Amino acid sequence: MTLRKQLKLGAMLHGVGSSTSAWRHPDAIADASVNFELYKRWTQKAEAGKFDLVFVADGLYITKESIPHFLNRFEPITILSALAGVSKRIGLVGTLSTSYSEPFTVARQFGSLDTISGGRAGWNIVTSPLEGSALNYGKKQHPDHDLRYRIADEFIEVVRGLWDSWEDDAFVRDKATGVFFDPAKMHTLNHQGEFFSVKGPLNIARSRQGHPVIFQAGTSEVGRDYAGKHADAIFTGQETVEEAVGYYRDVKRRAASFGRNPDHVVILPGISPIIGSTEEEAERKYQEIASLVSAEDALRYLGRYFEHHDFSQYELDAPFPELGDLGKNSFQGTTDRIKQKAKALGLTLRQTALQVATPRSSFIGTPEQVADNIQLWFERGGADGFMIGSGVPNGLEQFIDQVVPILQERGLFRTEYESDTLRGNLGLPVPKNRYSKEAELV
Amino acid sequence: MTLRKQLKLGAMLHGVGSSTSAWRHPDAIADASVNFELYKRWTQKAEAGKFDLVFVADGLYITKESIPHFLNRFEPITILSALAGVSKRIGLVGTLSTSYSEPFTVARQFGSLDTISGGRAGWNIVTSPLEGSALNYGKKQHPDHDLRYRIADEFIEVVRGLWDSWEDDAFVRDKATGVFFDPAKMHTLNHQGEFFSVKGPLNIARSRQGHPVIFQAGTSEVGRDYAGKHADAIFTGQETVEEAVGYYRDVKRRAASFGRNPDHVVILPGISPIIGSTEEEAERKYQEIASLVSAEDALRYLGRYFEHHDFSQYELDAPFPELGDLGKNSFQGTTDRIKQKAKALGLTLRQTALQVATPRSSFIGTPEQVADNIQLWFERGGADGFMIGSGVPNGLEQFIDQVVPILQERGLFRTEYESDTLRGNLGLPVPKNRYSKEAELV
Repeated sequence: MTLRKQLKLGAMLHGVGSSTSAWRHPDAIADASVNFELYKRWTQKAEAGKFDLVFVADGLYITKESIPHFLNRFEPITILSALAGVSKRIGLVGTLSTSYSEPFTVARQFGSLDTISGGRAGWNIVTSPLEGSALNYGKKQHPDHDLRYRIADEFIEVVRGLWDSWEDDAFVRDKATGVFFDPAKMHTLNHQGEFFSVKGPLNIARSRQGHPVIFQAGTSEVGRDYAGKHADAIFTGQETVEEAVGYYRDVKRRAASFGRNPDHVVILPGISPIIGSTEEEAERKYQEIASLVSAEDALRYLGRYFEHHDFSQYELDAPFPELGDLGKNSFQGTTDRIKQKAKALGLTLRQTALQVATPRSSFIGTPEQVADNIQLWFERGGADGFMIGSGVPNGLEQFIDQVVPILQERGLFRTEYESDTLRGNLGLPVPKNRYSKEAELV
Repeated sequence: MTLRKQLKLGAMLHGVGSSTSAWRHPDAIADASVNFELYKRWTQKAEAGKFDLVFVADGLYITKESIPHFLNRFEPITILSALAGVSKRIGLVGTLSTSYSEPFTVARQFGSLDTISGGRAGWNIVTSPLEGSALNYGKKQHPDHDLRYRIADEFIEVVRGLWDSWEDDAFVRDKATGVFFDPAKMHTLNHQGEFFSVKGPLNIARSRQGHPVIFQAGTSEVGRDYAGKHADAIFTGQETVEEAVGYYRDVKRRAASFGRNPDHVVILPGISPIIGSTEEEAERKYQEIASLVSAEDALRYLGRYFEHHDFSQYELDAPFPELGDLGKNSFQGTTDRIKQKAKALGLTLRQTALQVATPRSSFIGTPEQVADNIQLWFERGGADGFMIGSGVPNGLEQFIDQVVPILQERGLFRTEYESDTLRGNLGLPVPKNRYSKEAELV
């Protein structure tokens, strides 16, 4: 019997969930975004369900108009580290910006999390879409979209270089001779680039998985290139299986064009399943969540993607307004798609805003229907796995209890971890240390 | 019966311990500085011993000459967060530099740790003594000593302002009305200063202790002023009870001169007790640890305080060399003291280096003798408590098992936590939110 290719699963730990008004649901835990016991319970539940990883998103700027659960939420490095202490096998992945951080600190913090967790850390690289972020970091101007990616390009090179500061056998710790380390296996980066100048070495060694897993979520042209060039795993968000297949092929092709093995880029669309014992019950659950979002909330949510644009100035039931380049310098890929879809389907502003705020995904139904659709996307070549969000309160728990066993029965998902590192479970190789003799021979 | 004033205790989690060659001891766990299970065990042990806090130091620059356990060690924010997940009552304090960090990130990370731990975080403010730090952060020059303190002065004001972004009752979370927060209780800092420009608000609210506890360890004139002005707790390092009393009075006086209640500045000298069942056994333990340090190791250790100065160029048994201003821009207070002591006692370079590398503290002896000396320092007015380091392997465990019960018996130390926040246990008030109406009335 040949082993069937297995899909990968991640859990998005995202406060009350992806919908802007989900906190109003009767079953919602309204303080979820700052509730450590809840994050701990979710992580342990996902680990019991053999998930590859949990994922924590981030943002660096809020206003009164922000999504409620963004106003007051855990910072990723701290919450992931806390979760490292209360989990054993599951990966711990979080967002950190290359536009407003220092590579030496980022390398250290992810390196330290990786060592604390025994090789389970992952870093989701973002370039910070929100222009206001600059104001919290003493910058006159938010760097423009393409410049942000050029900075990110150099940033990841520096961080990877720092992670290789110590060869894996550098620390001898020979009590008899007094030799603590082999100086020939300590390496100083001496990076001098366009944006960064970093000497090194880093004061923490590599973990058992070599480097933390690099995640990326770019959807623009530049973002896709970046993902193809650098990412070990990609968190994406297509709405249909056809779009997913198109994106999947495109990014795998880009990876290959950078000389990489496309199998070493794991593509994970984000979905927020809504599960019912019947199709009707699932549909009712979706309607209940959707009804919590007022048109005003939906406009505010939409506005966030367009540099906090005030959409209340337009007629709600008129066609989606002409916005020119607005959004190009923040969420470029996402705003392009919203504009194109509104035009193609002739949607009004109200329809567009509600669709963005409470997207009606194709993962609403019975556990079997959701499993069927997951299998379809996976086998059609639109995904290597999925990032599971909570479309409704307890959505993650229901997915783990009801859908995961079906996927396991079908041989599509593991019943036990293959490895105790995140790279091991995702099927990714340990990166060679750039300085090691072994690396030179390759 | 009036309640006797209680002393406070902290545990320094410092890899194999404070001595530069302690890792060579037969009982030493040589990889201690990157061993999470050990940090977890120590923290849980200190919590069982009712310690106020654990403490993690830091540094931002290493060379081949660095102390072995500084080469490869946990980054404080990550290790403290991991320890938050596996502890319930003990405080979690760590070092973070104001010279190479962004206030928005520092406020977020300590704020998030404080919320995750339920109000147990503490931040030890350092200005980074090591000149090389600049090279890891793309800076042409390390700011000089006094400039570093001016930066630190503005930095802490910004961080405190960000921590007050949300009044404690700002988050209403009323599902029926859809009101998530009260916009009148969200505050935007809009700081524009000499070194920083930070808009706010911060995207995390205050914890139950209001602000993380501010630690400081300055010993220079400028450092003492900074501590008197800003610190809730001071980690210091005098060698004799007379010096401790002098320092204690001086800093409490400075605190009062800034209009503060001196009781709200907790002074904690760091000590590394060595305990034996007899005085002779304790002395043997000290000699064993001291004998592991070669003259070469000691010179290298000494050099680190003096901007990595190469002391091997001098005659070992000649008087301690004349160094001019060397050290003034790194560890100013410490290097001044080393120079003064060498001169006053007519020490050679060898004697000075060995004393610095393996200081012979007055906390070597039987458990009763160590407890007596702790009581002496405490009651003479040289300390509000102590930071306990490991002078020998298992030194912390021995202190908790053998000295703490004596202190408890004498009524000098708690047998149960008074509070579940760090401020509560240290006897510090919750800082008022600068924006709240209540604060205006005070």
